[in-house]
Amino acid sequence: MESIKPYKKEFTYSYCLGAFPSIELIKARPELVKGVYIHSSYTDRETLEAMLFRYQIPILEGDRIISRVSEKENVFVVAVFEKYECTLEKNQPHIILVNPGNMGNLGTILRTAAALGIYDIGIIRPGVDSFHPKVVRSSMGALFRLRHAYFNTFEEYKTAYPKHELFPFMLQGEKKLTIENCPRADLFSLIFGNEATGLPESYRQIGTSVMIPQSLDVDSLNLTIAVGIGTFLFMSSKN
Amino acid sequence: MESIKPYKKEFTYSYCLGAFPSIELIKARPELVKGVYIHSSYTDRETLEAMLFRYQIPILEGDRIISRVSEKENVFVVAVFEKYECTLEKNQPHIILVNPGNMGNLGTILRTAAALGIYDIGIIRPGVDSFHPKVVRSSMGALFRLRHAYFNTFEEYKTAYPKHELFPFMLQGEKKLTIENCPRADLFSLIFGNEATGLPESYRQIGTSVMIPQSLDVDSLNLTIAVGIGTFLFMSSKN
Repeated sequence: MESIKPYKKEFTYSYCLGAFPSIELIKARPELVKGVYIHSSYTDRETLEAMLFRYQIPILEGDRIISRVSEKENVFVVAVFEKYECTLEKNQPHIILVNPGNMGNLGTILRTAAALGIYDIGIIRPGVDSFHPKVVRSSMGALFRLRHAYFNTFEEYKTAYPKHELFPFMLQGEKKLTIENCPRADLFSLIFGNEATGLPESYRQIGTSVMIPQSLDVDSLNLTIAVGIGTFLFMSSKN
Repeated sequence: MESIKPYKKEFTYSYCLGAFPSIELIKARPELVKGVYIHSSYTDRETLEAMLFRYQIPILEGDRIISRVSEKENVFVVAVFEKYECTLEKNQPHIILVNPGNMGNLGTILRTAAALGIYDIGIIRPGVDSFHPKVVRSSMGALFRLRHAYFNTFEEYKTAYPKHELFPFMLQGEKKLTIENCPRADLFSLIFGNEATGLPESYRQIGTSVMIPQSLDVDSLNLTIAVGIGTFLFMSSKN
């Protein structure tokens, strides 16, 4: 394997930092894993080595390399994996993130989506890099359990998936979501804007704009919380 | 005012970092504010100065002091405020956090609670310091819009508020929450455990344990997301 460098977006590979996310990666997509660095002081080495042996994944050594790619984090396992492309499923509900700007939030949203049963995530550019080690780590490996794809514009997404009912989440959405009135759609896209700016006004025209009612005592719900509540409601109403 | 030092838990005062949370603090609890540092490069100085003048709050200068108390954050306004004690309302729903361990999460939970209409937050010790500048900042000032109180044990809380129906959130809770079956309680406490360990098993006996159904593809929902979904459901069912 080539010498290891701190991650850059142009790389064809990335790093999964931490034992838990690395094990998730190996379970979900073993064919992507080029090798796994294990720190000399990692305490559960045997289980991990047995797993790597089963999938014929090289075990790599190098405490200095681990600290170099993991920056300040306290990491004992680093899996090096090939990046990949996915296509979203045409017949499954989607979450669409328009211009997500925070890597930790993107990871948390991926983890939340998979926990609540949505496995197809679209990202409208510009948006943070889904393969950045910070996203992978904060997703706790959920990235590898779902499909995600980038689109240059929302139009490009809509053309590719014309059958989805569209629900943009907006602070002044036309429908205030409650447990009684959540739309019962079978095939839907829940659309969320950037952390700081929300969705542009133009999204009000593309479908049924919705909002999570909230008190005036706070500027707005955090994006990850809004995605969590919205996804739970729509998935609960679907069944 | 005494010379300014990086925050410590023993202080009788703390710092609110950032213009937005500081303005929230001044609007909600002006009597607590001892003074506000404004960075020489802050661009909306006039609005803030007018507000401080109205409440007769001293305007302080000192770019070096701002960078000293704000650590690595990019901060232009720092409000110095007296810490205070609150009593939770006996006739309002509560969120109880058992041993919260992450300051950013605590702040996000406070912001989420206020947004969704729960204004009384109990914290069972040990737990992070609610007045730490990191908590205040990640709450976006919501800390000052609600009441919060610490208790040494859960028993101490329960003795003080015996009328609340108790709903511990547990991964193997006896009731899987859906939008149809969420309990319709008027006076309730939603109880959440530590980020890493959840609630101890003993909490299963104290009320109706509940869980947010989630796929096996993820270890668990992030604590803040679970609080968001749980609070939304119970508050929506209440009305």
